[in-house]
Amino acid sequence: MLLNLNCKYLEKFISFKEYFKIKTKIEQAHNLLHFKNSRLKEYLGWVSLPKNYNKTEFNEILNTAKKIQSDSEVLVVIGIGGSYIGTRAAIEFLKSNFYNNLPKNTPNIYFVGNSISASSLCDVLKLCNNKKISLNVISKSGTTTEPMIAFKIFKEFMEKSYGRKETASRIYCTTGAENSVLKTIATENGYKIFNIPKDIGGRFSVLTAAGLLPISVSGANISKIMKGALFAYNDSLSIKSSENQCYKYAAIRNILYKKSKNIEITAFFEPRFSFLGKWIEQLFGESEGKDLKGIFPTSMIFSTELHSMGQFIQDGSRNIFETILFIDNVGNDIKIENSKNMSSFDFLSGKTMNWVNKKAFEGTVAAHEDGNVPVVILQCENASEETLGYIFYFFEKACAISSLIMGVNPFNQPGVENYKKNMFTLLGKPGYENYKKI
Amino acid sequence: MLLNLNCKYLEKFISFKEYFKIKTKIEQAHNLLHFKNSRLKEYLGWVSLPKNYNKTEFNEILNTAKKIQSDSEVLVVIGIGGSYIGTRAAIEFLKSNFYNNLPKNTPNIYFVGNSISASSLCDVLKLCNNKKISLNVISKSGTTTEPMIAFKIFKEFMEKSYGRKETASRIYCTTGAENSVLKTIATENGYKIFNIPKDIGGRFSVLTAAGLLPISVSGANISKIMKGALFAYNDSLSIKSSENQCYKYAAIRNILYKKSKNIEITAFFEPRFSFLGKWIEQLFGESEGKDLKGIFPTSMIFSTELHSMGQFIQDGSRNIFETILFIDNVGNDIKIENSKNMSSFDFLSGKTMNWVNKKAFEGTVAAHEDGNVPVVILQCENASEETLGYIFYFFEKACAISSLIMGVNPFNQPGVENYKKNMFTLLGKPGYENYKKI
Repeated sequence: MLLNLNCKYLEKFISFKEYFKIKTKIEQAHNLLHFKNSRLKEYLGWVSLPKNYNKTEFNEILNTAKKIQSDSEVLVVIGIGGSYIGTRAAIEFLKSNFYNNLPKNTPNIYFVGNSISASSLCDVLKLCNNKKISLNVISKSGTTTEPMIAFKIFKEFMEKSYGRKETASRIYCTTGAENSVLKTIATENGYKIFNIPKDIGGRFSVLTAAGLLPISVSGANISKIMKGALFAYNDSLSIKSSENQCYKYAAIRNILYKKSKNIEITAFFEPRFSFLGKWIEQLFGESEGKDLKGIFPTSMIFSTELHSMGQFIQDGSRNIFETILFIDNVGNDIKIENSKNMSSFDFLSGKTMNWVNKKAFEGTVAAHEDGNVPVVILQCENASEETLGYIFYFFEKACAISSLIMGVNPFNQPGVENYKKNMFTLLGKPGYENYKKI
Repeated sequence: MLLNLNCKYLEKFISFKEYFKIKTKIEQAHNLLHFKNSRLKEYLGWVSLPKNYNKTEFNEILNTAKKIQSDSEVLVVIGIGGSYIGTRAAIEFLKSNFYNNLPKNTPNIYFVGNSISASSLCDVLKLCNNKKISLNVISKSGTTTEPMIAFKIFKEFMEKSYGRKETASRIYCTTGAENSVLKTIATENGYKIFNIPKDIGGRFSVLTAAGLLPISVSGANISKIMKGALFAYNDSLSIKSSENQCYKYAAIRNILYKKSKNIEITAFFEPRFSFLGKWIEQLFGESEGKDLKGIFPTSMIFSTELHSMGQFIQDGSRNIFETILFIDNVGNDIKIENSKNMSSFDFLSGKTMNWVNKKAFEGTVAAHEDGNVPVVILQCENASEETLGYIFYFFEKACAISSLIMGVNPFNQPGVENYKKNMFTLLGKPGYENYKKI
């Protein structure tokens, strides 16, 4: 398997009986995801996506990525939430968090429209000056304020240098097929359109065109990502949690939650995995965090944050548990040589950094076990495209199962609407005049 | 005042009586920080630092920063935890999170030694190829694994191109005066030395040479930062929380903590403030998170994370409270023009992004109040150096007071030692053979 769940450090927190007790709930959750006439079927497009994805559109994504690579120095990706985090997570995971700084033969990729910061947008406009640009606007509905403001500004910026016609050939819209303002704009202006399926929500959309187009532009192999996701799909079909580590992880989360472990720290030992952490935060936060329930999801990069949050994890309030995703071979390695005049560190001479990093991982697990923190370990062999596809699907399914066990609908987000409506009222959007007096 | 505390949205959570009940504890905490013979005096160097800092060394920092600006294209900063986060927070806050990408007449600044990732270090080595480099190694003791590995590697990298002598003139060590392995190495090799005072711990050290040298290299005005910190020092001298908003914030945190609000989300509305959030996480996490106590500190950038964690904040488990640090004028602004063929967003035409961002802030507060989340508001006029200095000192003092009210020693970090010792054992460091069998 591309990912292995290790429960060794949970033994003092969870008994075999507790897994058994949760069995029925897992089966019910499984059926809700897999039954043809599930009451949730309008949300379940992601479940068999690794098997059923649209191959024609997939090829079109590959062709478009090649075109962008050949005619652009910069790809500006406009999106927020599910139309932003997973894509960035993939590019950083597979390439580097220094992707834009390093020499390469693929375009720089800048993410905008994910905040309302003028100062941040000004910076990216500066970086795009006199560069050949393409634009990928990603929004299922086309009504979200942040990306649409950025879209307005970049459209104008591009039309100034390219004129309307060439600009149109450099704008790609990834959006829903129905009721999408963005689709209307794209059709009217002759922009190329990619589809976000109706039955796949934002936080489950990284394996659709929403993620795949920009990921492919970065030079990553998206066919391998889909292959990895298919492995995860096949590995998580059994209804029994003893044979299905994805379901077992979902069970563990719920059992710990019932024992007042209401914060989950997902931790990695590589800086370039930090956005994968953010993707997991959204996935679980938005799926589970409702009806006054939910494990608060947060993520950390070790050993970096062992030197800031390590104290709290070791000795602070005991309402946390930790899920460490450790990858054995992440890429480059460096051998630590003997250095003149630095003899106090000679004990490391001849070792490699990857070896030291693995010892840090082992030392962390031992220390946190000492500190009575339940530690879930997920371990992968390498940081390949297949592994990433596997990870994406594994967490999506674990999250859906976990939320259903908790008794919430994993696929809606009623709370986000509250903020959006308030904001539209404050912004004076027609139709929202009476939503709320503030 | 450079920062204003607004408690309007706390009224339904905290009564006047509760502030009164905590009065004695605040007075005791105040005395522990200000009495000459306090039992904590070995840790209190930061308290009057804005008034008493070493002016001779300060001028030396300014001169050295000028030298580095004139002879280097890249400054590599080696440090972890308190020797990393605050510095990066300051540079991103004052300049940009795109600082290294943007055109400028100051050196690029890369932070290394804050993880054990070979792949990340390889990336930075590539970015340094054929560049004129200076190195600032920051470690109070010089025994921390992560920075010392990076130091070994960069020292060798530089000696290959510069030879030992010129390399020595390009390495700056910021370290403690006593028992510092780094000081010994620096003395033996003839590296310039800056001092981290003995009575200032890592997470309180951003206003010492540990932070000020690299911040000054970025072109920021460190005299103004110290001036802002002095304002905060003077504004937080009163023993009464009714006259001292820094103490009032500390009181609020403790009152909410007693009501099971055990997660604090510090939120900003600017992407370039994200490392300030990380700095606050370390400050509170490492100070308060001990003796099985502590509010779990986390930080978010809005509106970005309203589209991922907003659902949880609005509707999830009700064990959270929010501290929003909003800054009215953050720098550049962009006017949103009327756009052809995008009429559904015409209601924003003529508005500026800063205006929209402020509405998002107001909409967020209203929505979260609706969702029964206690919201503390800290508001500043602008993102100047003075404001940043004020913010640093304000949070340092609020954190010390808050931890003392909670009944923990804010200045030690016994839990971090556990991980370090485990790791040294696993790495085979002489003297740690018997620490723990794993």
